[in-house]
Amino acid sequence: MKIICTKSNLAKGVGIVSKAVPSKTTMPILECILIDATTDIIKLTANDMELGIETIIEGEILDKGMIALDAKIFSEIVRKLPDNEIVIETGANDQTMITCEKAKFNISGKSGNDFAYLPYIEKEEPVRLSQYTLKEVIRQTIFSIADNESNKLMTGELFEINENILKVVSLDGHRISIRKIELKDTYGMRKAVVPGKTLMEVSKILSGEVDSEVQIYFTENHVVFEFDQTVVVSRLIEGEYFRIEQMLSSDYETKVRMNKRELLSCIDRATLLVKEGDKKPIIIHIGDESMELKIQSQLGSMDEEIFITKEGKDLLIGFNPKFLIDALRVIDDEEVNLYFMNAKAPCFIKDEKETYVYLILPVNFNAI
Amino acid sequence: MKIICTKSNLAKGVGIVSKAVPSKTTMPILECILIDATTDIIKLTANDMELGIETIIEGEILDKGMIALDAKIFSEIVRKLPDNEIVIETGANDQTMITCEKAKFNISGKSGNDFAYLPYIEKEEPVRLSQYTLKEVIRQTIFSIADNESNKLMTGELFEINENILKVVSLDGHRISIRKIELKDTYGMRKAVVPGKTLMEVSKILSGEVDSEVQIYFTENHVVFEFDQTVVVSRLIEGEYFRIEQMLSSDYETKVRMNKRELLSCIDRATLLVKEGDKKPIIIHIGDESMELKIQSQLGSMDEEIFITKEGKDLLIGFNPKFLIDALRVIDDEEVNLYFMNAKAPCFIKDEKETYVYLILPVNFNAI
Repeated sequence: MKIICTKSNLAKGVGIVSKAVPSKTTMPILECILIDATTDIIKLTANDMELGIETIIEGEILDKGMIALDAKIFSEIVRKLPDNEIVIETGANDQTMITCEKAKFNISGKSGNDFAYLPYIEKEEPVRLSQYTLKEVIRQTIFSIADNESNKLMTGELFEINENILKVVSLDGHRISIRKIELKDTYGMRKAVVPGKTLMEVSKILSGEVDSEVQIYFTENHVVFEFDQTVVVSRLIEGEYFRIEQMLSSDYETKVRMNKRELLSCIDRATLLVKEGDKKPIIIHIGDESMELKIQSQLGSMDEEIFITKEGKDLLIGFNPKFLIDALRVIDDEEVNLYFMNAKAPCFIKDEKETYVYLILPVNFNAI
Repeated sequence: MKIICTKSNLAKGVGIVSKAVPSKTTMPILECILIDATTDIIKLTANDMELGIETIIEGEILDKGMIALDAKIFSEIVRKLPDNEIVIETGANDQTMITCEKAKFNISGKSGNDFAYLPYIEKEEPVRLSQYTLKEVIRQTIFSIADNESNKLMTGELFEINENILKVVSLDGHRISIRKIELKDTYGMRKAVVPGKTLMEVSKILSGEVDSEVQIYFTENHVVFEFDQTVVVSRLIEGEYFRIEQMLSSDYETKVRMNKRELLSCIDRATLLVKEGDKKPIIIHIGDESMELKIQSQLGSMDEEIFITKEGKDLLIGFNPKFLIDALRVIDDEEVNLYFMNAKAPCFIKDEKETYVYLILPVNFNAI
């Protein structure tokens, strides 16, 4: 194989597919990036068996062929080469020469034949949305997946498409995040649980432009994201996702409305008295025109008042401050509405149209 | 004590003195910042017994007094408070209330009486130079101090003032860095070994402005840096510094001149084949009009040629690439001169006037 491409094209492609290179694996071939120039395009591929990414880069093929190169070394070399044309040429025993200007690298490659190709997916009608929207909806929900593997379904996000609405849901047992997005077109019902890791990596690769489109294909076991020159294929998480409808309620005894930034800064300040791993709740006392937030730890205490507009009863309730912070950070509204039933029932942060709903369970506390 | 000052003034002062708060100590009082408002100025102090920093901040004193507050919590609180006036007030048992707008923090302080004050220094004629120059000279030499404590003198830098020349030297057994600076005024001979840690912290606090001045006082056991509203006092390292004159030589058999950036990028590229801790040398082959650099490791090999102007003999010599990179990074000249005697003798990177001299010992290698 002998190919020529610019450093910038190569670096971009390597950056994209690297997201699917596993950090730890018992199969050395998975630590490689496959350069496939057997046809008339140059395709880079990486695959950790759950998640596979393929991208086409511009360049010239002088000799057809393919080679698998250690992802870490290869990407380091590309990154540090001068900004000029790079020639990659394979020799005997998969030895690979990477040349740019007067710099010559010689590294060992592996035969492309051992590489695990991406699964072949029978693609049907794609769901279309902008890169911007997909990137945003991932950011706005990904923080509330569970990071332990004891309940596999909690490590993924539900993608549910019904007519022209995409609903994305994540939950970790203490909270639920829901985002609803209006799509341009109308589709039949689709439901899939996409691994959180896949979404995080996809989100990093997405340019996030409003004008660029992503096409998403769902099959029984896989999801495929296609955008720009890139294809991401991921396994889905098997099983029936949690029925969240029964946990949602639009009844409330107390509704408060306040400035979002003020609330977020206040909770953020309060948490500095809480050491990592320490589970000190923030106590919220809702009164007529103001809400008092208090926290107390071994390090000291903090209290602060925030102006609010209130409907309904007064309330004293405690929360894990991190859960409030996570939700408030991804809400773009200037003012937010919080709905409460009582001190034992979840709090809902949501807008009127329920384009977002963040449910957070309260915690027990000793009144201070 | 009760004082009022703006968040920005307080945050700046806390940031400065925090540099002298030890990360680990058996004396909890040293983890504190002392706020001293017993006179008519507000002074912040921190002291780890080797290094002490004191800075004056603007503000209003409503009640004279002093208090020592845990540096970490106090600086976190200040950082997260709104950008407005902050009131600090002490109550019974050194309880301290920090208030800003509607946020109230209550933390435990410690009596200022237990605090270790900075030593009193009999200051004589100061050495004056610009903040920019001091910050630069530290950056240009600090990388070649030794980080282990087995030879205490190697963990510091020699500051030698003679007439109008300040010479700063650091060495770690494998290399020596020397910078000479012309001062505006003329002074009597002064010599002191300043701890590397002190210099690193001072360098972080210096604004680095050309027009701002630093005054440096040397006494038998201490050095004092005075600039802006800040005083830094540090112990000196005791003992006679190494005699480096006998290691320096202006004889050479080979002199080469080349573009600095080209050389630096080339060595930087070569090192990516060397894993941390692995001691692979870079082999330099000096020929008539070009210099070849080669490195070989388990990961592969790299070679590259650089155009040079040469005087004297051809040479084959090996170096720890990191040492070359460290020196080249802090040289601002576009072209550099390297002087060699033979493959066993040190290489000198220096300019004509010897405002900088970087000596680097070669390493043995197996010809490849």
